Amino acid sequence: MSFATAVSPRRTPARKGASTRAAIVDTALAIARRAGLEALTIGMLAEQLGMSKSGVFAHFGSREELQLAVLKEYAARFIDEVLRPALRRRRGLPRLQAILANWLRLLAREIEQGCLMIAGASEYDDRPGPLRDALVQIVMGWKSELLRAIEAAKAEGHLRADVDGHQLVFEIYGLMLVLHQDARLLKSADSVKRTRAGLKRLIDAARADSRPPSKAARARGRLT
Amino acid sequence: MSFATAVSPRRTPARKGASTRAAIVDTALAIARRAGLEALTIGMLAEQLGMSKSGVFAHFGSREELQLAVLKEYAARFIDEVLRPALRRRRGLPRLQAILANWLRLLAREIEQGCLMIAGASEYDDRPGPLRDALVQIVMGWKSELLRAIEAAKAEGHLRADVDGHQLVFEIYGLMLVLHQDARLLKSADSVKRTRAGLKRLIDAARADSRPPSKAARARGRLT
Repeated sequence: MSFATAVSPRRTPARKGASTRAAIVDTALAIARRAGLEALTIGMLAEQLGMSKSGVFAHFGSREELQLAVLKEYAARFIDEVLRPALRRRRGLPRLQAILANWLRLLAREIEQGCLMIAGASEYDDRPGPLRDALVQIVMGWKSELLRAIEAAKAEGHLRADVDGHQLVFEIYGLMLVLHQDARLLKSADSVKRTRAGLKRLIDAARADSRPPSKAARARGRLT
Repeated sequence: MSFATAVSPRRTPARKGASTRAAIVDTALAIARRAGLEALTIGMLAEQLGMSKSGVFAHFGSREELQLAVLKEYAARFIDEVLRPALRRRRGLPRLQAILANWLRLLAREIEQGCLMIAGASEYDDRPGPLRDALVQIVMGWKSELLRAIEAAKAEGHLRADVDGHQLVFEIYGLMLVLHQDARLLKSADSVKRTRAGLKRLIDAARADSRPPSKAARARGRLT
């Protein structure tokens, strides 16, 4: 079972209890996007929903269980918006490019409130526990989906066979992270444009019709 | 006056009060590195130093003033370690490469406790105030030092004249941010190696002896 199927299974008609639970998660996600996962409490959530705290507790045994459900919902929506539409594109480079374009569009839209995953990574990187584990699982899962798309583009002959897929995933992630920091901390107006340019440069350099500079050419240019 | 001179002036022999202040900032910086700037309190600091709270207050009128002093000290040490030694290298590409190598070494060493600036950027990006302003000033100042080094490498003919310096700074930053996230959240063993490879690729593509792929070559390879 792929990461995408795991975090975002096909939706089935919900029972009554399930729909209340979904409504709670929906509101909790909105709060967490604004204030961060750590700021989320059952009391605050109950107040906003006009429910009793015990009513919320009936669906989530603990605050941590609620936070985990919020993360899972975030990941499911991410897959629905970034990966799923791209699967309709031709396998290989067109699909990879659609994934990157959808991801960039999502991040650009989230600049104002911040990305729950990027903020969460910084918040929980030194706090061992189930939330950190869930974040790691989501980031690793997403990286393996990216890698799968890159490997498919290599198999189709769209990207060079000697492209290091893990390295490409790493550099793509860097461009997304610096977009988030530049746009939020520095309020740079051109971060989306710069990330788009960086992604294009990365993909262009990996295309089957491009050629990495020869060792001889690089040696000639080395400054000692 | 350059950013480097502003944050890290030549040290002069300290008066007594100044040296106590420096000792307080030193301990405060160690606490902030471990627990984050927000976790820093005057009470905690006084206890660790074996001073009274009023003794600490005599040097810093408020917790915020202390946090600002910690940030400034962090920036000064960063400049001392990353930029200053590189200024002894030949102007142009050798100096730029020394800056990047020093920065990478510093980040690699900070993986365990986390980088105060990167963690701070995520912590304060949506909290207007003097701390956010100070973070912005430090990041902007550092970006302009990087840009200055890139422009010098262009002027020396080491990098191509058509290289977009702002774009290069942006992409360099991305590689440093993903190193930090990968190494801390995912505990990846190869992040330093991957960032080094990414930096090399960026610089190689910008070298005066490299040639960006022609439009015609790219058009031939475009998949529709």
